[in-house]
Formats: sequence, C-alpha cells, structure tokens
Amino acid sequence: MVSDGERRARVALSFLAQPGDPVLGAALERMSCGDLMGLVTGADGDGSVVLTGGPLEPALDRAICRWRERLGEVPSMARLAAWQQSGLRLVLPGDPEWPTQLDDLGTVRPLLLWLRGCGDLRLACASSVAMVGARAATGYGNHVAVEMAAGLAERDIGIVSGGAFGIDASAHRGTLAADGVTVAVLAGGLEFGYPRGHTDLFLAIARQGVLVSECPPDRGPTRPGFLIRNRIIAALSRGTVVVEAALRSGALNSARHARELCRPVMAVPGPVTSDQSAGCHELIRDFGAMCVTCANDVLQHVCPPGTQPSDLRLGPSTARDLLDPVTTAVLEEVPVRGGRGPASIAVRAGVDLDTALRCLGLLAASGFVERGPQGWRAKRLERAV
Amino acid sequence: MVSDGERRARVALSFLAQPGDPVLGAALERMSCGDLMGLVTGADGDGSVVLTGGPLEPALDRAICRWRERLGEVPSMARLAAWQQSGLRLVLPGDPEWPTQLDDLGTVRPLLLWLRGCGDLRLACASSVAMVGARAATGYGNHVAVEMAAGLAERDIGIVSGGAFGIDASAHRGTLAADGVTVAVLAGGLEFGYPRGHTDLFLAIARQGVLVSECPPDRGPTRPGFLIRNRIIAALSRGTVVVEAALRSGALNSARHARELCRPVMAVPGPVTSDQSAGCHELIRDFGAMCVTCANDVLQHVCPPGTQPSDLRLGPSTARDLLDPVTTAVLEEVPVRGGRGPASIAVRAGVDLDTALRCLGLLAASGFVERGPQGWRAKRLERAV
Repeated sequence: MVSDGERRARVALSFLAQPGDPVLGAALERMSCGDLMGLVTGADGDGSVVLTGGPLEPALDRAICRWRERLGEVPSMARLAAWQQSGLRLVLPGDPEWPTQLDDLGTVRPLLLWLRGCGDLRLACASSVAMVGARAATGYGNHVAVEMAAGLAERDIGIVSGGAFGIDASAHRGTLAADGVTVAVLAGGLEFGYPRGHTDLFLAIARQGVLVSECPPDRGPTRPGFLIRNRIIAALSRGTVVVEAALRSGALNSARHARELCRPVMAVPGPVTSDQSAGCHELIRDFGAMCVTCANDVLQHVCPPGTQPSDLRLGPSTARDLLDPVTTAVLEEVPVRGGRGPASIAVRAGVDLDTALRCLGLLAASGFVERGPQGWRAKRLERAV
Repeated sequence: MVSDGERRARVALSFLAQPGDPVLGAALERMSCGDLMGLVTGADGDGSVVLTGGPLEPALDRAICRWRERLGEVPSMARLAAWQQSGLRLVLPGDPEWPTQLDDLGTVRPLLLWLRGCGDLRLACASSVAMVGARAATGYGNHVAVEMAAGLAERDIGIVSGGAFGIDASAHRGTLAADGVTVAVLAGGLEFGYPRGHTDLFLAIARQGVLVSECPPDRGPTRPGFLIRNRIIAALSRGTVVVEAALRSGALNSARHARELCRPVMAVPGPVTSDQSAGCHELIRDFGAMCVTCANDVLQHVCPPGTQPSDLRLGPSTARDLLDPVTTAVLEEVPVRGGRGPASIAVRAGVDLDTALRCLGLLAASGFVERGPQGWRAKRLERAV
C-alpha cells in the first residue's frame, strides 16, 4: 500500500506538471513522489533521495524550477475534500480501481486519474475497445459508431472514447442504448466538463459508466491536451477502432498510440468519395490497420482465441435453425434492445396473440428471450446458443 | 510460325472442347493440335504421336470420345471466312496480337481468341487493369468505377472487364469517356453478343478497344462459362480491382484467379452498411486484398517502381504551385476530358477573354494544356510536371 504522504505528494505533482510529462515519468522511475516533491518545495524530503547520475540532469532541473513556480496551484485539503464530496474520486496506481494496463505507458503513464460515475473503471476497461473518430462525422459514421458500439456492448465489450462531438458521442450513446458500460476520457478536468454541449451525455455516462480525466478537475482542456489524452484511451482498451477520420485527423493519433502499445488498430471503411473516411482508408492501406465492418470483426481482433463467439455474419446459429418457422417469425420481432409487448410482437410476426404468447414462452424456456422492464427482448446470442 | 494445318486443327478443337478444359491443355503439352485432332477424327495424323505413358489416360480418352461426337460442330472454311468478313478476327498463340501473359494460365490457357474492334489486343493489355464487380451495382459503385476507370485511362492504363451490367459496364464507359482503351472479355461468342442490352456499348468498345471471346462466335454463354471466362480477365491484366461485390459474388472469382496468377488483388471499400461492398471488405479483411480508393492507389500496385507518377492525393504538383493566382484560376477551368472554348473558360474563371487567352498561351507553352478538337483541355499531369 502507498503511504498517505506519498499519495499527497503524487496528487500535488498532478497539479504542477503537465499530463504525460516524460521528464516527470523518468524521474519517478528513480525516486518517489515524496522525494521529488521534496526537491520542488526545497525541503529534503525524508533524506533518502539518491540520484544515480550524481547531479540532476538539466531537463529535470528545469522542470523542477517550473513546478516550483506553480506551487500555489496545489489545492488545499479542503478543496480536494470538496471535489470528492461533489462525486469525484481519485484513483492512484496501486488502488483497487487502477487499471493496470495503464502501466504499459511507461514514463508517460498518468500520475493519477479523477473519476466520476457508478462504474468501476478497472472492471469497465477489462474487456473494452476504444472507438474514436472525427468530430465532423457524417450521418454514415455516426450510424456505424452507434451500431458497432451497441453490438459490442451486447457482447459485454465496453467502449472507451473521448466524449467529443461526432464519432465519440455516437460510440458512447450506442453503448448506453444497449445498456453497456462506457468510459469517457476527457482532455480537460471533470468539473470543467468540456465540451459544454455534452453535459447531458456526461451525466448519462456517469450513471452507467465512468468519466475519466488525468487533469485537475477545474482545469480546461488545452490544444495539446487532446492529443496527450489519447494515449490513455488507447492504453485502457484492448484495441482501437477508428470509425471515421479525415486525412491527418486527431483520431489517427489515437491509432498511433494503440500501435505503439502493440494493441490492434482497426478502421471502418466507408465511401471512397467521403473525406471523412479517407483517414480510415489510409490506416488500412498504408499502416496495416485491420478493416472492420461490424462488432464481430472487432471482437475477432480483441478477444483471445477460444473466447470469441462464432462468426455471426455467416447466418443464424444452429440452435436457432432448429426452431419452426412460426417461432422463428416471432423471435424475429423480439428486439435485442429495450423491449416489446406480446400484442405488438404478434401483429408484426403476423400471428395471433395466443400463438405469440405460446412461442414467447417456448423461446424464454430455451433461453432465446427474456421479459425486461419494457417487455420481451432477445437475449444475447452467446447465452442463447 | 505455326503451320496452316496446325492452325486449322486448333480452330477445330476450339469448337469441340469446352473453354478452359484442363484435360485438353495437359494433352497439348505433350502433342500438337494436329496430332490430337488426328486422334479425334480417327486418322493417324502425321504418325508422330508419342504418348509418354503408353496408352491414353482415361480422362483424355473420354474427352476424345466426347469431342468426336461433336465433330459436326466444326464450321466449314466458308463459315469461318464469313465470320472474318463480318469483322471478327482470330488470334492464336504465337500471332503478333496474342497477349503472351495468357501463357501464365498454363493448361487452362485459351486455345485461341476471337476478337472484334479497332484496338490491338496485345497493346491494349500491355498496361491494363481488370476492373470487375457486381451486376447489381449501387449508384456509389457505378460512380467509383467510372471515375477510377477514367482516371486510369488518363494515365494510359487500359481497363479489362467482362462487359456485364453494373460495375463492368461502368468501368468500360469510364474508359471510353476518357478516350482510353478498354477490353471486354465476353463469356459467350462475339456474334451472340450477350447481354443483348449492351449492343450499343459493345459497338462503342469495338470502335475504341477490343471485344474478346474464346467461344465460337455463335455460341451463347453458359452459367459455368462466366466463371471460366474470368481467368482470361485476370490473366490479361496486371492486377484486378473489385469495385463492388456482395459476399460470394462472382467478382470474387476473378480476384481468386488474379491471386493464383500472383497478380495484385485490389478492392474498393464502401459503406459497411452496403451489401454490395461486403465482398470487397471481405477481400481486404480476410484475403489480403489491397484497399484502393482512387486511380493513383491502383497505379501504385500495378506500375513497377520508378514508373509511377507522384502521389496526387497530397495536393497539386510543385510546378502547378508556382503559377500565379489568375493563371491557376484559368487552369482550374480547363477540363481534363473533352475540351472547352476560351470564352467559356474566361467566364468560368472570372477573367476577361484577353487574360484567358494570354494565360492559356502561357499554360500551353509550359505543357499544362493543349488545344484539342473540342477546345482547350488539360494535359495529363505526368506530362505537365
């Protein structure tokens, strides 16, 4: 366990240094946060600072001077407590909720994370995919992001994204619609809540997933901050899917981080006539990104062999093939998301209510459907077959 | 040179055997057409038949029996002459117009080809790309096929396709529109002219390119004939581009032939929501096909290094960047295909006629534009820079 003093020093450093500062990361490989803060404040710490190379190297020396000038930005214990009172929580390396895959970032690992939301970040990210893309997404891109995110959520894959307009928002919304867990990693602080237009979306994510930021809660996002944040999106997830991106889009930066972390990079193709798909095609063509067209394609790249469901593109499962035509017709009308009443299902399937109820009973007994708060809904396929 | 007797025997065999019959191909590796026809007609030929394995193997024996029953289908010399009178010509291996790349087909090399049209088949195919795809193409697919084929034609790359509805027709039409050379390899005979709805298209192809078939001119296409024909499309060209294809589409068969011939297989991505792009995505995802989005992408895969033009996706050429804004505005209004009068160019560029004429003169002197039969037109970029 980390000592209280060490925790306090780490929190203080997170208010002094820029996110992802590699000089800080390199220094912390040689000394503790407490020791480093001792150098910043001019105190000697606990006296155990041992610098392998003799005097401090110039880069760290300059950084310590910069941090010293900002010591006034370290908040009081009362301020920190007020943030935690308002629903924020702090997670540090070694804490139970800390996602250990972030350690793959090495010297640019975030110092700590601020979180808001009901979800447990470590659990939410254990089987997750990053889905990112253009802010100026097209209707096509938004549609694909919603469908793919929902399809992954139905297979218990969480979605990590950046909470931005466009593809990010569609990916979050698709997951929420499928009752899945979604994680938004924001470039600014969680109290700042940028972009403001997403206040409602962020509330919804907090109810069902987690909002994440490595920045002090009240700090606004900076331009380089968006790119620096992308490394966390890539590192939290098992792979990154770019849904739409123009050439030289920021989304390609997320893909680059994923590749550096040896995680699969995937891209969704689109019309070659669309500028917003040009970046995806470039990823496939020139950077070896996997071409993915649906949730199952993504699953094949992020699930270890043996754990992935059978390829659903080829048609219905064998168990489903064994159903009689009337029961199949009824099953066809049971939605996967939300729910539908038996009368509505009967009308859509072209059978009378009694038949529909009989078939629904059979289907429920066989594990194909279940009754939810909004009516009958189809169970996820992995469980049904 | 091939003797007249050998030519006649080869032509006769082409009326007896099915296209691409590997038993025939294997036999012709051991004996001449004349010798084989001797076995079919029961004559001894010139007596030089030597079978390495002693008696004929059963497959060839059965084939000869089949061919013998069809001897009545071999046309008279007068009939052959009448076809040639009507504008058809026969090309056999060893003839100057025979495309030697067909020899890569080995035992399934066509016995001969019937041709119609002004183009020289060997020249037309020397730098050509096969462009194939769905009959039930979408507006998107047809648009991409036309543009890509025209773009390749402007770079002196011919287009080989199958003359079918959909992508094939769009590929031919795009080439014709750009004054390029296009080759249609039909599954049925050239007199039969299937599909009938393409009579006008075939006339246009014959005026500017070549119609090709390995079938007797009056024979209609058979269902397996379409697939067997595809090997010729793949073998004539330097690589195969699939523009749109559903899963399990016949166009994927062309791609398979190209791969067997070690020629590049390329596929155009499209919306993942379109069934007609699913086959293309499958090719990219599972079969290692190259993702191509424009004529330049195709060029990179089929032109030997050093001969390909600079990548035009990144923007205008340096030489073009050196032009002043007014001259650039005038150049913008000079079409690449067809032509435009100086008055029209002046109006569109927002300059007066004198300025337009002065700029056009300068642009012509620098090799950017030229005067064609329909007015000023932009020269192909490789020549201008």
